[in-house]
Amino acid sequence: MVSINENYLNLQGSYLFSTIAKKVREYQEKNPQNLIIRLGIGDVTQPLAPVIVEALHKAVAQMGTSEGFHGYGPEQGYEFLRSAIAVEDYQARGCDISPEEIFVSDGAKCDVGNIQEIFGIDNRVAVCDPVYPVYVDTNVMAGRSGRYNTETGGFENLIYMPCTRENGFAPELPKEVPDMIYLCFPNNPTGAAIQKDALQEWVDYANRHGSVILYDAAYEAYITEENVPHSIYECSGAKGCAIEMHSFSKNAGFTGLRLGYTVVPKELSVSGVKLHDLWNRRHGTKYNGAPYIVQRAGEAVYSPEGKAQLKEQVAYYMENARLIREGLLAAGFTAFGGVNAPYIWLQTPAHMTSWEFFDQLLSRAQVVGTPGSGFGASGEGYFRLTAFGTRENTLEALERIRGF
Amino acid sequence: MVSINENYLNLQGSYLFSTIAKKVREYQEKNPQNLIIRLGIGDVTQPLAPVIVEALHKAVAQMGTSEGFHGYGPEQGYEFLRSAIAVEDYQARGCDISPEEIFVSDGAKCDVGNIQEIFGIDNRVAVCDPVYPVYVDTNVMAGRSGRYNTETGGFENLIYMPCTRENGFAPELPKEVPDMIYLCFPNNPTGAAIQKDALQEWVDYANRHGSVILYDAAYEAYITEENVPHSIYECSGAKGCAIEMHSFSKNAGFTGLRLGYTVVPKELSVSGVKLHDLWNRRHGTKYNGAPYIVQRAGEAVYSPEGKAQLKEQVAYYMENARLIREGLLAAGFTAFGGVNAPYIWLQTPAHMTSWEFFDQLLSRAQVVGTPGSGFGASGEGYFRLTAFGTRENTLEALERIRGF
Repeated sequence: MVSINENYLNLQGSYLFSTIAKKVREYQEKNPQNLIIRLGIGDVTQPLAPVIVEALHKAVAQMGTSEGFHGYGPEQGYEFLRSAIAVEDYQARGCDISPEEIFVSDGAKCDVGNIQEIFGIDNRVAVCDPVYPVYVDTNVMAGRSGRYNTETGGFENLIYMPCTRENGFAPELPKEVPDMIYLCFPNNPTGAAIQKDALQEWVDYANRHGSVILYDAAYEAYITEENVPHSIYECSGAKGCAIEMHSFSKNAGFTGLRLGYTVVPKELSVSGVKLHDLWNRRHGTKYNGAPYIVQRAGEAVYSPEGKAQLKEQVAYYMENARLIREGLLAAGFTAFGGVNAPYIWLQTPAHMTSWEFFDQLLSRAQVVGTPGSGFGASGEGYFRLTAFGTRENTLEALERIRGF
Repeated sequence: MVSINENYLNLQGSYLFSTIAKKVREYQEKNPQNLIIRLGIGDVTQPLAPVIVEALHKAVAQMGTSEGFHGYGPEQGYEFLRSAIAVEDYQARGCDISPEEIFVSDGAKCDVGNIQEIFGIDNRVAVCDPVYPVYVDTNVMAGRSGRYNTETGGFENLIYMPCTRENGFAPELPKEVPDMIYLCFPNNPTGAAIQKDALQEWVDYANRHGSVILYDAAYEAYITEENVPHSIYECSGAKGCAIEMHSFSKNAGFTGLRLGYTVVPKELSVSGVKLHDLWNRRHGTKYNGAPYIVQRAGEAVYSPEGKAQLKEQVAYYMENARLIREGLLAAGFTAFGGVNAPYIWLQTPAHMTSWEFFDQLLSRAQVVGTPGSGFGASGEGYFRLTAFGTRENTLEALERIRGF
């Protein structure tokens, strides 16, 4: 008789954002007259930039002609996009990454979720705490986690690296050496950035111990300060120990278009096996490439007009971030982030738990945020607001929070 | 120190279609003057139908406006598309499938590759032989196969169900009971269809033994004969034992747009756990939904204009199938399929191996097909041609094969 993957039974509750969506839906059904402002999920709100819309229309028109039709593309992505990425995101920053090392996909969430498949089940996994739940849940599903411990609020075999106000939301090098290390900078959910010399320490640590760093750079477009690396490959030796994931969702508003990429350097080997070969095999076997029209839209991101229009879009959100951050501080909240990231991480007032604050904010101010505890035990007592709303909604939400 | 997923080392060679692409590329580089006709990979060649192009343009224009912008959608797909599928592909055929049982994705290949994740590692897997390689390779990667046995040409723990000329390319109910059974009808690569009563036997077998059938219905649009089921849910009891996968690639030319779906009935349980819940969790955790614009294109497939235009497109390919089938028979080949499927399965002449025939056909006729042995040991001595070329190329290829 068939059996299920029992690791799934170790998963805790349902996926964080689904739970939030459900609570919001229920509140809205009971209170249809109240306008809810969503600063919870990290979804953008600005329409696609004109240059993207134009590239899409052009590619769609092509697809309607015999000469311009594109069927199955290369699973790894079209050369035109892989080259643009290699040149613009890497070589222009002095990182020696070639187009062949770039795997285009339908989004960083998929890559971040799937990348663990090429590693053995016995590897010890380290994650920041708080953390984007996908890193944890996908390792639980694969069987790397052990059981959930309700006392610690974590899984038994995972190594949690607390990121709290006390350590400036910077994880410390773990004493117990992990095999797979998930890092995300600028960080989701805390909004903290990492300096280049601090990231170099992680690279050196991984190289010293034979660990692999899975580096999620989804928010790099929001970096405003000097000395904050846009890619882990800015660190020396990173090509021997790190895989990097990127998204087009946050820098170009592709949350509904779906495009991302993963860099697996060719020199990254484990026991003589190139991880590039393994990921290539996975990509070729379980994936069939991102839509041609979306890859053409991705290409437009790197055009001069694309860069200019998207710089404006990012600036728009970062102005929201500044408003939220400064507005919260002025209202007496303690808040972090929002300088190199579109996330503001605030401490809940009056020792409320994160979910208590969520419920209060929803019912009394009709503002939706994300409870910090949803990201891990060390997120308890914190709350995430995003800068991805419209200006109008952001200002209105701040007004309501001030009254609250 | 980090370790890799060693199951990957059990995989044989590289993925079939990548190998073919490489051989063709190498031939073309050496013989740039020769025009190669590709009837190998199952990729369509007709441009997107006007109704699809129109739906895409409309959705792209929406995405460029504040009111019409769509960010993250539901991971399971938009309600408008799930409903259209439930009504048109199921309820219209008397199958009681609801929109909530449908999971929209970026293609059947991904779903077919990922579905095994929700099952335990110790399940015995049965596949037809010959078989679409993704069913096998994804189970090898997961660790459900033993080692590859070069003598049998198969993996040790998999149950192979030979489909040969002798049994009319219909697999027999296995004596050793499998837990997970992959079936694909109309079949890739043999082009064979299954009658409703024969499929009912499989459903009864699975229900009797507590097995799950993973039913790949990617080619159902090509069914022309009565009594050939378009869905496994036309069989009684199938909702208790079967998951079905569909593609928009073959019925609507979406190979380059990427859209598919999987049906997991809510009543399908294993040891009290609903497979619907597990797949929903997987989908929500590792996937972020298909692009909004592509889902709108999928919706257009079910409009009256869409149905009319795509019926014509399918008829175009099926006329190719008829021409290939009859042309080959007239030229003295032994050939099967091509009646309810876009694939023609021919026996190689003069006892050539499949790859010998591939090489000969490429070098002497510049026609690319797919070697039957690439689909499994029982495919040796066979060769697959597809009806997805243009009429002109199909006729030219036949002319060349006749001369060959």
